[in-house]
Parts: sequence; structure tokens; C-alpha cells
Amino acid sequence: MQPYAEMSNEELLAVRKQLSAQYKEFQGKDLKLDMSRGKPSVEQLDLSMGMMDVLSSQDDLTCEDGTDCRNYGVLAGIKEAKEIIGDMMEVAPANIIIYGNSSLNVMFDTISRSMTHGVMGSTPWCKLDKVKFICIVPGYDRHFAITEYFGIEMVNVPMLESGPDMDMIEKLVAEDEAIKGIWCVPKYSNPTGNSYSDETVRRFARLKPAAPDFRIYWDNAYGVHHLYDHDQDHLIEILAECKRAGNPDLVYKFSSTSKISFPGSGIAAIATSRNNLEDIEKQLQYQTIGHDKVNQLRHVRYFGDIHGMVEHMRLHADILRPKFESVISILDRELGGLGIGEWTRPKGGYFISFNTIDGCAKDVVAKCKKAGLVMTKAGATYPYGKDPHDSNIRIAPSYPPLGDLILAMELFALCVKIVTIDKIIKNRQENPAPVQHTEAAAEQ
Amino acid sequence: MQPYAEMSNEELLAVRKQLSAQYKEFQGKDLKLDMSRGKPSVEQLDLSMGMMDVLSSQDDLTCEDGTDCRNYGVLAGIKEAKEIIGDMMEVAPANIIIYGNSSLNVMFDTISRSMTHGVMGSTPWCKLDKVKFICIVPGYDRHFAITEYFGIEMVNVPMLESGPDMDMIEKLVAEDEAIKGIWCVPKYSNPTGNSYSDETVRRFARLKPAAPDFRIYWDNAYGVHHLYDHDQDHLIEILAECKRAGNPDLVYKFSSTSKISFPGSGIAAIATSRNNLEDIEKQLQYQTIGHDKVNQLRHVRYFGDIHGMVEHMRLHADILRPKFESVISILDRELGGLGIGEWTRPKGGYFISFNTIDGCAKDVVAKCKKAGLVMTKAGATYPYGKDPHDSNIRIAPSYPPLGDLILAMELFALCVKIVTIDKIIKNRQENPAPVQHTEAAAEQ
Repeated sequence: MQPYAEMSNEELLAVRKQLSAQYKEFQGKDLKLDMSRGKPSVEQLDLSMGMMDVLSSQDDLTCEDGTDCRNYGVLAGIKEAKEIIGDMMEVAPANIIIYGNSSLNVMFDTISRSMTHGVMGSTPWCKLDKVKFICIVPGYDRHFAITEYFGIEMVNVPMLESGPDMDMIEKLVAEDEAIKGIWCVPKYSNPTGNSYSDETVRRFARLKPAAPDFRIYWDNAYGVHHLYDHDQDHLIEILAECKRAGNPDLVYKFSSTSKISFPGSGIAAIATSRNNLEDIEKQLQYQTIGHDKVNQLRHVRYFGDIHGMVEHMRLHADILRPKFESVISILDRELGGLGIGEWTRPKGGYFISFNTIDGCAKDVVAKCKKAGLVMTKAGATYPYGKDPHDSNIRIAPSYPPLGDLILAMELFALCVKIVTIDKIIKNRQENPAPVQHTEAAAEQ
Repeated sequence: MQPYAEMSNEELLAVRKQLSAQYKEFQGKDLKLDMSRGKPSVEQLDLSMGMMDVLSSQDDLTCEDGTDCRNYGVLAGIKEAKEIIGDMMEVAPANIIIYGNSSLNVMFDTISRSMTHGVMGSTPWCKLDKVKFICIVPGYDRHFAITEYFGIEMVNVPMLESGPDMDMIEKLVAEDEAIKGIWCVPKYSNPTGNSYSDETVRRFARLKPAAPDFRIYWDNAYGVHHLYDHDQDHLIEILAECKRAGNPDLVYKFSSTSKISFPGSGIAAIATSRNNLEDIEKQLQYQTIGHDKVNQLRHVRYFGDIHGMVEHMRLHADILRPKFESVISILDRELGGLGIGEWTRPKGGYFISFNTIDGCAKDVVAKCKKAGLVMTKAGATYPYGKDPHDSNIRIAPSYPPLGDLILAMELFALCVKIVTIDKIIKNRQENPAPVQHTEAAAEQ
């Protein structure tokens, strides 16, 4: 494959003509494909239908400790649920509070509480002139939306191979007391799919923030969401590492069963130090008498234990793996060697991250849409929806059936090619110097 | 029965001696009775066990509009759930958002949102020097706890036969811009058990608050919780009345299925004007992708429609009615004519309110506890836990089995008698004038 940058305008236009014909063909297919969100497929949801049978009218809905799950009470979650979710999150049951559906809700409430009441006795953030959060980019749009909603200023730090740029983070948190938190998806990150290295986690645990109410918001959304049985990323457990580093209260860890059982009816949790938990429970007792305990019990009885959950995740992987592998193989086949894009090769999670050359992402997404394929909005992976390079596109392979996905990715690759050709030609017109260089390259 | 106030000290002490012997007998029984909270009994919870069977692995968890309840999405609740909860709350489905378990959580979040973001564009309350709420007393401790948690100053307004003192409320809200809300349990009120009269509701709907972000927090927790089939309280629907009065945005209405299906696994809702709903949804979209839809569907499929729910509530009433009637008949029998207490005779809800003579409530509750009966803490029905008369005690008949309840109420009546005798004698010692009056009365 000859890189596009080394082709002459004439060559590019010839290629473009063929691609346009292919694009028109796609437009004629009247496609309606949605790859915008990391939603499990119907096939994956079917895996958990047994959940509907584990509690029947003949069953006793009483916990081991005698708690009647049907009635009021148990603010922090039933013991059995803390045990299995503890194993899932790699922390002791005593370090967990179980919530209702949606870990996003737990994260939102955590920020909201800090706004109105501070963190462990600190000044409520709403009383401060300025509150900032570090956002690792590209990252998860719903994280950024929460901080934006609360008027928190967001500071971008780039994601590297080994995790975020720790030199930048260490400097920022040490120097700026207004920085109160950092959003992280440490494992099979959203959207890059890579995981933080051991060194990265250790440096996180050793941070010396200027603000005593600084916390790491560790959204371990994909902790058990591997694609392969042996070839898995491993993440150092951050709570234990913080404790070893003498920073036991530094981190809030979030997780849920959304992509294990049902996104529409799961259980979520926070794991953190006892000090932090006491601070949280002080608020939680005013907010609710208790979250849905019957659904907690349903999850416990269905999965049994962490091994049961891991076996269940293997079934998810069997469905997701071919989808991830198809996306990557189509990108390799269609775009490999052209020098017009880069993509990640995750071993788990829900996303593949794609980078176009600068200034093409929006146009690619728009062009996909015109042919019936909805991708995640370009810019969504950056705070305020602003990707400074206009290059990152999040690919979410989980929801469409495999046949649709293949079609979608072929269309996507086609759009990347067309948009990039237009961009290269435009760049050459606007910046004569690179044009000469490219022509020289083409003559070789 | 001779009123205690008309008896001489000698007569009272003679009575007290007998009562003390009875109290010792109770102490010997090693009782463990809990009447502290309005919890449904095990028998009531058993009524809803069929809920566990309506969704099986063989069922389609798809809504009428095609929504897969298992997956992400549907921020405001599934259509079917809005319909049945709409019928329950007497409002159109379009005026409803369905949440997860616990209406307390919805109320907390409503206040929390107002603190950080104001109401429909008003200044966030956390930026104001002073925010006040009117609290109708006696009232619901968890309401008061939320406002106290957010540092909102609470202003007491007394509950009368027909509902709260509307003269006071009209004056307060018209004159004080710092007053942003009022907590109401309008039907079978907690703890008095009476309901707001038509005139009271009309006056609520016609309030002219100085603060544009003032809202009525209408916690209609016992809307369908009648004890009798014909002899029911009827409440004018407040949303419609506000609309007719030209104040469509004045009220937030809350409700849940906590005491219909399971307190530990119900669904909650807010009903209000479209303007208010849009304001709420703007926030909610950052907080969650959606609440538990499977449990919403479970409720819809189990109850079918509002008639099914009403029939179900009839079964609850069959269990609760004998308990309420026992409490009232024991109070009538044991305390009637003694002039040492007043109690309400509700036609629904979960509570009976008892007033001792001034200064006795704490001692009565403490004396009950010493013999193994836990009542709701004295003072709990007032903001900051401070009952200025130390007279109100909330009686919650629902949880104990009928046999235990009868025992508990006999013990309670006994404690009221003993504590009141001690109080009367003490009052006479401290205030000689009433002593002479009482002796004169005794000589007649």
C-alpha cells in the first residue's frame, strides 16, 4: 500500500473517484447502523435471562444474616452482594457500598456531595471560586459531562501507551490546590482500550496533591471484561496500593454489573477507605433508606460467586471477540499502510479508538451518517466536546450484529479514505510547502 | 373515668402503685417489640410475592414501544410504568418521571439539585445567604433531616384538623423570599393520619410566594393506602388545581410503590408540570442513563392497571385495619376520659399520632424502652428533633404481629399513665397555685 501522503493529487483524485462510486453504492443500501454507544447486543443480554428465574414466589428472599430483602433498611447493601462485588472489584466487602442501577449515578452523586458538603470536612466546592478536574484525553464523555454540569473547569492530560502522562499529572496536582479530582478508566480504557501500567498505578498511589480533598475517580468499568482467557491486561489494585503508599483515602473506585448482567437493571458500587465510606454514609442516610436489595440478592443467587461471574464473562467474550477482531482486521486490510489513521488493539472493554490525521474526525463521522451509519459524535471523547486535533473517533463494536458491523466498518474505512484525500488536497492548496515535499516523494 | 388532673396526690399515688406493679410484670416478660418505623409487616410483604414470577426467562422484556428493558436508555421511565403510576398519582403520564427504589431519594435529589443549580434558572441556593423551608408539625422526620443536612432553616407551622395553618403559610411565603419550599404529606399525613381539606388544597394552589423558585414538596406517600373501602379521605389533585389557579409550576409531587409492592425493591416517581420536568431532565441526563427498567416492567405486568393495584391495596388494608382498630380501641379503653392524652383516628396511611400532656413524651418513650418496646424517638416529628411541648409520639402499628401490637399498646398506655402521674405531681410541687386548684376540685 502506498501512503496517501506520498501520492500526487492526480493519483489521489483517481482513487477518490473509485471510492465515491463505492460510497454511492452504500448510500443506495438505505442502511440504519448504530455504533454510537457501548451497548451490549441482544445476544449478550440473552445470556443473563436466567436472572429472571432465580427468585420466584417460592423462594425465601432473606439474607444469610436474616435481613428480609423485601423490606426497608440496609443502607450500604446486603452482605452477600458486598462479598461478590468485593471479589469483582478486588477489595474487602467492608470497603464497599452497593447502590442501585448505574455507576454513573454513584459518580454524579459523589461530585454533587462534594459540591454541597465537601470531602471529609473540606470546604464545599460550591463555596470555592474555582474547582478543576484533570481529564485524561481521549476519555469518557459522560465523565466530562458531569464535571461540566457542575461548572468544574477541565484540564486535559493526554493518554499514552502506558496510561496518562504521569509527569503532567504529578506536577498539576502538586501545584494547583483548585484541582480536586481526576477521571480515570484504568482498564481497557474508554475509548483507547489500553490499561494503565504498573508504574502508572504506583505513581497514582503516590500522588502528593496540594488539595487535601483531591480524590482519584477510578472508574473500573471493565474490570472483568476480557476478550481472551489468557491474554488479559492486569491492573494493580489501587486501593491496596494507596494504602501501601500511605495515601489510604486518595481514591474512589467505581464499578457496576451493567455490562455483566443488564445495563437496564444492574447494581453499582463504590469501593474506598473506611474513612471515605463513613463520610459518604453520613450523606447517604439522608438520601435513601436503602437501594434495591431484591436485585442485589438476585445477582448474588444468579452468579453464586466470582468464579460464576468470570465464567459468565467468558460467554460475553465469545460474542464480543469476533466483533473486535473483525473491526481490527477490516481496519488493517482497508487502511493498513495508507498512513491515514491509527487504531488500538484492546484485549477487553467496549471500545476501539481511531485517530484520523488532524482535522478529519468530524467530516468522517458526518460522511458515515449520510450513508446511514451513526458513530459516536466526533469530539465526544474530549471535555466540552472539543478535540483540539479533530482526529479521535470512538468505535463501539458491541451492539450491531456481526454482519452489520462488517458492513459498517467497510463504510467507515471508505469514509476515512475519502475525507482524508480531500483533506490532503486541501492542505496542499493551503500550504504550498508540504505540496512540494509530497510531489518530491511521489517522484521517487 | 375520673380525669387525673382532678385527683388528689394521694389518689394518684395509690393508682401509681398499682400501675408500677403492672409495669414490673411487663419488665419480667423480656419483650422485644419495635414500633419505631412505618414498615409493612411480613404478612404484607408476602402479598406481593407474585411479583417474583411475572418475569421469567421465557418472557419478553420488551415494552409496547419496542424498548428492550434490559439495555441502556429511557431516562424518564418506560411508557407503561408512567401510565399506571400516572393513574396512581392522578396525573397524566406526560407529567411523570419514574425513578428507582425510594421516593426519599427523589426528594433528596430535588433539594440537592436546587442547592447546586437552582430551580428553573434561579440562583443556586448554595449561593444564597439564607434558605428556609416551612415544616408542618408534627411531620415526617426524614423530610426534616434532608433540609437540615443542606443547612436549610426550618420554620414550624402547626397541623390542624383541616391540614396546616394556611393563614400562617400564606403570610410566610408572601413576605419572605428566603422561603423556598414546604414539606407536605397531604393525605393520611405522617404522623397525624388526617388529610388536607378541599379548602386547604385550594389555598395551597393559590399561594403567592415571594420567591419565584418556591415549590410545594407534596409527598403523597399514602395516596392509595386506605383502610376502608367506602370511608376514605379524598384529596383534591394538586397539579390540576395549581394549573386552574394559574400556578402550574408551583408543586412537585412525589410518590412510590414502597408500601404497595416492596419497600426494598419498589419504584418511585415525581409528577409535576412539563416546565419543571424539563428542568429536572436537564440534570437527570448527567446523573444516569436510566433507572431500573426491568423492575418498572415487573410492576406493570404484576399490577396490570390501577384497578389491579387498588384490589391489591385492599389486601394490605385487610391486614392493617385490625391493627389500627386495636391501637385505637386500647387507647380508648385505657386512656379514655383520663385527660392525659389525645390520639388520632386515621382512615388510612401508616401512623396514629399521640399527644401527651406537655413535657411527657420523652419520658413515655424512655419508659417503654426500659420494658422492651421501641417507639419512634420523641421529638422525631419536629425539625431538629425538638418538640417544643415534648408531647407528640408517633405510633406505627404496621410492623408487629397483632398479638405483639396489643401487648405493646397496653404497655404504652401504662407508661403514659405512670409518666403523667409523675408529671402532674411534679407540676403541683413546682407551681403551688394549680395544686390548690386540684385539691379544691378533689374536695367537690
